[in-house]
Amino acid sequence: MRTIEFHDTTVRVRYAETDQMGVVYHANYLIWFEVGRVELMRAMGFEYKTMESEDDCHIVVAEAYCRYEKPARYDDVLRVRTRVAEWRNRIVKFSYEIFRDADDLLLTTGSTTHIICGSDGRPKALPPKYRDVLLHLHVPNPDRSEA
Amino acid sequence: MRTIEFHDTTVRVRYAETDQMGVVYHANYLIWFEVGRVELMRAMGFEYKTMESEDDCHIVVAEAYCRYEKPARYDDVLRVRTRVAEWRNRIVKFSYEIFRDADDLLLTTGSTTHIICGSDGRPKALPPKYRDVLLHLHVPNPDRSEA
Amino acid sequence: MRTIEFHDTTVRVRYAETDQMGVVYHANYLIWFEVGRVELMRAMGFEYKTMESEDDCHIVVAEAYCRYEKPARYDDVLRVRTRVAEWRNRIVKFSYEIFRDADDLLLTTGSTTHIICGSDGRPKALPPKYRDVLLHLHVPNPDRSEA
Amino acid sequence: MRTIEFHDTTVRVRYAETDQMGVVYHANYLIWFEVGRVELMRAMGFEYKTMESEDDCHIVVAEAYCRYEKPARYDDVLRVRTRVAEWRNRIVKFSYEIFRDADDLLLTTGSTTHIICGSDGRPKALPPKYRDVLLHLHVPNPDRSEA
Repeated sequence: MRTIEFHDTTVRVRYAETDQMGVVYHANYLIWFEVGRVELMRAMGFEYKTMESEDDCHIVVAEAYCRYEKPARYDDVLRVRTRVAEWRNRIVKFSYEIFRDADDLLLTTGSTTHIICGSDGRPKALPPKYRDVLLHLHVPNPDRSEA
Repeated sequence: MRTIEFHDTTVRVRYAETDQMGVVYHANYLIWFEVGRVELMRAMGFEYKTMESEDDCHIVVAEAYCRYEKPARYDDVLRVRTRVAEWRNRIVKFSYEIFRDADDLLLTTGSTTHIICGSDGRPKALPPKYRDVLLHLHVPNPDRSEA
Repeated sequence: MRTIEFHDTTVRVRYAETDQMGVVYHANYLIWFEVGRVELMRAMGFEYKTMESEDDCHIVVAEAYCRYEKPARYDDVLRVRTRVAEWRNRIVKFSYEIFRDADDLLLTTGSTTHIICGSDGRPKALPPKYRDVLLHLHVPNPDRSEA
Repeated sequence: MRTIEFHDTTVRVRYAETDQMGVVYHANYLIWFEVGRVELMRAMGFEYKTMESEDDCHIVVAEAYCRYEKPARYDDVLRVRTRVAEWRNRIVKFSYEIFRDADDLLLTTGSTTHIICGSDGRPKALPPKYRDVLLHLHVPNPDRSEA
């Protein structure tokens, strides 16, 4: 199993994602953050889809933050860089940077905090097989006290 | 129970729904059609939410058509006029007209065809209590052969 | 001119806004925040649409934060409570609370920070006519040093 | 210059695109149709972005039709197959098929009809450089009377 620090994935801005200011509507970055964390998980060897369907683990969003530095524009290829910023027994925090791929310009930074829940909406511990994978992530200053 | 021919509901265009052409992105009209048919049902005395949760009846979209005459713009108040264009045992077809409320200009027309399905995805007959309500709708040239 | 502390507006959750977890997808709250601030402005006597088209003032999003307490669900009527949390010459910060209207349950809190820009993307001062309106808002601990 | 009959591009279903029925919300297919036609244009050697910004040619949607055969689900990789179904001087019609990539199952078919407009919203002829490219497309039963 590899130890990784972050994962990069790309998305191309769709016309539907622009608004009449001629730039990307700001809520769409949260959707790309989701793409980033799902692809980070896939790079770590598991699918979020399976986590939901087979292990009844839902990564429910508890907090989201986004800082908009420069606007993304239609047809831009964006590179979403995702890290696991923190993880504890029932909580995972991801951080994100979105770059314009053509010139590496940093457009947006952000983070999302998640609680692991069952389909009943109750918090639950992340199953050991996923925790083991998370151990191979380079997480700066991790709080492993509850893990 | 009232006999109604159509139902009008209004929506106001959100910034998120515009695109860089300075008008509403075309996929959003399908979302307003959905608002139209849900409000038509509510006006007829039942909630689609309950239909799903209590009667396991899902109005699955089988076909959608939209004709764009004039563009809707940011902050416009739109009037969505919805009719039941056709209904049979397992199939309901709605038709829509979207007007700009300020001057009654017709912006968009369209239709959606739906199949009544259970949560297993299988077609099922509409329960009698909903069919009885539909009888009080004025439907031009209804095909009631299967009903 | 009235002095107001906050403004309430309602939205009803659309099917399009739910996801397969059976609750509202988290990015949609940012769109309702936008509805909240636009309706706050309208209650204060001006239209954001006109601010863009006639005064070339765009309220560009610089930061967004959202904390999800309880999930909103399909067909819920939500009450979006919006305040001006802070305003300075070129910067406006709004804060939001979203309640489920049926039982006043607080679902979500958040804030957005905006920079007033021209259509060229450059920061500019808010025109006096809008600043005069903002003076009639009750803003707790306002920073008026630059205004 | 190559002669092509259709162009395939892939998209992966995002969580944001699902709804509480556990499948993709139907309006999203129109967004993928847009991805399909933009990538078809790119494969033919030009960018829609440039067409807008340099040639003031906007491909305005006049009609959209979608037929839903089978539902797409979260995390599915979809293959969007796009053809130019018809083209005349000011009108272009695209047709689409969306397949689930894993097993080639046809999920959706549809079409969109577009009018070439300037940023003033008035119809205009497609510039010769784009028409020349379109000549290299295999279009069944094209109506070239106006071209």
